[in-house]
Amino acid sequence: MAKAPKPNRPEARLPKGFRDTPADEVRQTSQMLAKIREVYESYGFEPLETPAIEYTEALGKFLPDLDRPNEGVFSFQDEDEQWLSLRYDLTAPLARFVAEGLKTQTLPLPFRRYAVGPVWRNEKPGPGRFRQFTQFDADTVGTDNVAADAEICMLAADTLEALGIKRGDYVVKVSNRKVLDGLREVAGLAGDGNDARWLTVMRALDKHDRLGDAGVRLLLGAGRKDESGDFTKGAELDGKAIETVMSIFTPAASIDEKLAHLDTQIGASEIGRQGKAELQTIWSLASAAGYQGRVSIDLSVVRGLEYYTGPVFEAELTFQVKDEDGNTVRFGSVGGGGRYDGLVERFTGQKVPATGFSIGVSRLQAALAALGGIRAQGTGPVVVLVMDKARVADYQMMTQTLRQAGIRAEMYLGTAGMKAQMKYADKRHAPCVVIQGGDEKAKGEIQIKDLIEGSKASETIKDSKEWREGRPAQISVPEADLVPAVRDILARHKA
Amino acid sequence: MAKAPKPNRPEARLPKGFRDTPADEVRQTSQMLAKIREVYESYGFEPLETPAIEYTEALGKFLPDLDRPNEGVFSFQDEDEQWLSLRYDLTAPLARFVAEGLKTQTLPLPFRRYAVGPVWRNEKPGPGRFRQFTQFDADTVGTDNVAADAEICMLAADTLEALGIKRGDYVVKVSNRKVLDGLREVAGLAGDGNDARWLTVMRALDKHDRLGDAGVRLLLGAGRKDESGDFTKGAELDGKAIETVMSIFTPAASIDEKLAHLDTQIGASEIGRQGKAELQTIWSLASAAGYQGRVSIDLSVVRGLEYYTGPVFEAELTFQVKDEDGNTVRFGSVGGGGRYDGLVERFTGQKVPATGFSIGVSRLQAALAALGGIRAQGTGPVVVLVMDKARVADYQMMTQTLRQAGIRAEMYLGTAGMKAQMKYADKRHAPCVVIQGGDEKAKGEIQIKDLIEGSKASETIKDSKEWREGRPAQISVPEADLVPAVRDILARHKA
Repeated sequence: MAKAPKPNRPEARLPKGFRDTPADEVRQTSQMLAKIREVYESYGFEPLETPAIEYTEALGKFLPDLDRPNEGVFSFQDEDEQWLSLRYDLTAPLARFVAEGLKTQTLPLPFRRYAVGPVWRNEKPGPGRFRQFTQFDADTVGTDNVAADAEICMLAADTLEALGIKRGDYVVKVSNRKVLDGLREVAGLAGDGNDARWLTVMRALDKHDRLGDAGVRLLLGAGRKDESGDFTKGAELDGKAIETVMSIFTPAASIDEKLAHLDTQIGASEIGRQGKAELQTIWSLASAAGYQGRVSIDLSVVRGLEYYTGPVFEAELTFQVKDEDGNTVRFGSVGGGGRYDGLVERFTGQKVPATGFSIGVSRLQAALAALGGIRAQGTGPVVVLVMDKARVADYQMMTQTLRQAGIRAEMYLGTAGMKAQMKYADKRHAPCVVIQGGDEKAKGEIQIKDLIEGSKASETIKDSKEWREGRPAQISVPEADLVPAVRDILARHKA
Repeated sequence: MAKAPKPNRPEARLPKGFRDTPADEVRQTSQMLAKIREVYESYGFEPLETPAIEYTEALGKFLPDLDRPNEGVFSFQDEDEQWLSLRYDLTAPLARFVAEGLKTQTLPLPFRRYAVGPVWRNEKPGPGRFRQFTQFDADTVGTDNVAADAEICMLAADTLEALGIKRGDYVVKVSNRKVLDGLREVAGLAGDGNDARWLTVMRALDKHDRLGDAGVRLLLGAGRKDESGDFTKGAELDGKAIETVMSIFTPAASIDEKLAHLDTQIGASEIGRQGKAELQTIWSLASAAGYQGRVSIDLSVVRGLEYYTGPVFEAELTFQVKDEDGNTVRFGSVGGGGRYDGLVERFTGQKVPATGFSIGVSRLQAALAALGGIRAQGTGPVVVLVMDKARVADYQMMTQTLRQAGIRAEMYLGTAGMKAQMKYADKRHAPCVVIQGGDEKAKGEIQIKDLIEGSKASETIKDSKEWREGRPAQISVPEADLVPAVRDILARHKA
């Protein structure tokens, strides 16, 4: 017989760069977010939620250079042909919110808010790089007080520790865009004509951690060929300019010494001196509060986003993991931020300085998993088997009785037989199943099969007889003892 | 002097139909979601998160008739010119997920999952009607067992009670699309040619709650003019068909009697008899589990979404509130759902029956607010004032000391003077402020000003002197007593 033509069915798949999050990961994320929220709240930040969609012009274009420079955001037109975009971060919407709130004067300034939610980037997806990811931000808007920046750094450090990352396993690195601007002036690279070149310099500095002095020098000069043979064109600075730029990496015995060096390195630049003074203040405040070693000054921190105007921060995990190629590397950045004094001014023309920090939630979650700080698969619900389809109402009642006693439970809702039901309970990671067939019903009893003991028993065949007699994997109890008997089993496995 | 031309600034505003959510509401939502999650978990549902963006063809077109029929979803093209859409509910993405999971056979069936998150509708916004809103769903996929539908109804009832809605203040109403299909056959309206007419009938039935028998009769016939004079065209059924349709509203002494009536009303239709049998089973199971009054059979429930194939549910709050025009009305629907046996089959060609329920989170939150079940504005953080800018590090330390003791605290980060700082603390709903000027410093003391007692005192001027002596709104304590003194004040206001 000829086959009927296949109907035109949609394919069950996600667009590239998107993923589903399974149960265990959703639960872990939710635990993480609760801990982060607790620290942010303790600092006096208040929650705010803004919608996913904003006017494109309200978000502005501040993403770092992209594989596809004219995109980066997901955009579409509304019925009035105005362009809308999905937010690419939580900071641009905050600036819009504050500018709107200033019109009505309802906002207490400084305004301190935290926000958590998904953001979207229309970028080329790659391994571990998705087009939707979750950020958790804290920002202080309406003050140019550098104490606000210092506080944000302490917040970042406290958050990482609250999540179980040990002191010494992380550092919050601080630099300042003004110091970099000063360096640019001193190196003779001021002026719009040098913008592209300076961008190349910034990108080179950003790689100091990985490439070291020698690698960065190449990128500041003619360029650098990497291990795979790929050539990256350099900034083509002359030797003197290269030395000026590289001077910020001069080894120093202490952060105080490093800051003192800056006076000679960029003291000739007004903006550079400002930046250095800000770093000095942040360092003093962090030191006074006992955050030495947890917060540090590191001039290689650049941060990609174009809206930063002063201090910039990067929270880095310093312990080592294997990368995709099996090399041992530092885990790296799990969040960052900085001061963005111009973002609200875009709307209002009025100066509204601001600073903030953003945690990359998935990245941090991966780190916690690498540290073993996230517990593995939990147990599922108790499964009540359906032994007799005519008695579904009875099984439903047992299930409700367990639930009302605070025990996660479900009745098997499929149509399969006993063996398949047991298999289902295993797949669900059920701690035990509840069974009442005709014989048990006649005796007014219920059987409870402990699936965890059961699977242990089958792994230790040798001693299993003796062991099972001590701890039977299946017990019979009177109907009225359903709840206490299940509780006993759950308590045993918790211990 | 001529004014400089105004620079071209973006306007700080949100697109129509979107809103920001302030701190109190974010906190209330998060409490609500935690309670809903607890009930869903107790029923054995597992969390799943799918992304906001899906292929348009994977989501399908199942939205109810719209103001703008060709829209309804926000869509855009990816770099390969394939159409992507923002999800308009959480069910269509679940169907895609299950169809994908069946390919790899990794899914335990029945699959029980819950999901919470924003969905987007490109519809005309109105008062209280937004284009982004949050749904909280539970679904059981892979079983045609009506016990799964009955369980979903009990879940809905338990969830509402867990949120503090009293028994009697809500009802989970159940109907069945198959009963409606049977009614259509019996009324002689079968056949594609009657589709549009039947849609008008369904919409009329949906309004039975509000318009009563007489109003629905008009809409089934020539049409109805409402109080404002607007005319709604009717389905133009003949008298006999109208009576057939209206028969489902025949008063009955009990649900059992109502179900018995159905046999005569639609017994001539095979699909109708199936639907009636399903309703009967749901009612038996719910009654056996003690859910009479909480779960009810109500044939006026229609539900707009086009993918429903069997039982449909609507969770309705029955207490009365004033509507926008000041009329007393029932609060109405806060969630609904039903069986959608064809949604996974769209992808796979294989029958994968499913049923589920969705809570409209904002709508339910509004209901809880109307019931007074949501507590008002909480207190803000303790604010440490900056009396001497040179001593910022000291104030920062006091703030950190409070935080480390588990007390929400912030140092004032603006640049204003004492009076403006007090005003800021008021706006922040701070329970108290911590003050240390030069005099206090010299004495090794700290002043703590109780803002809540302070504002009470200023309201009761008459007795204020006497009262303040008993409970001073401002106290001085030694530096070392900062934490216990602040704790005392917080404890006093909690009591």
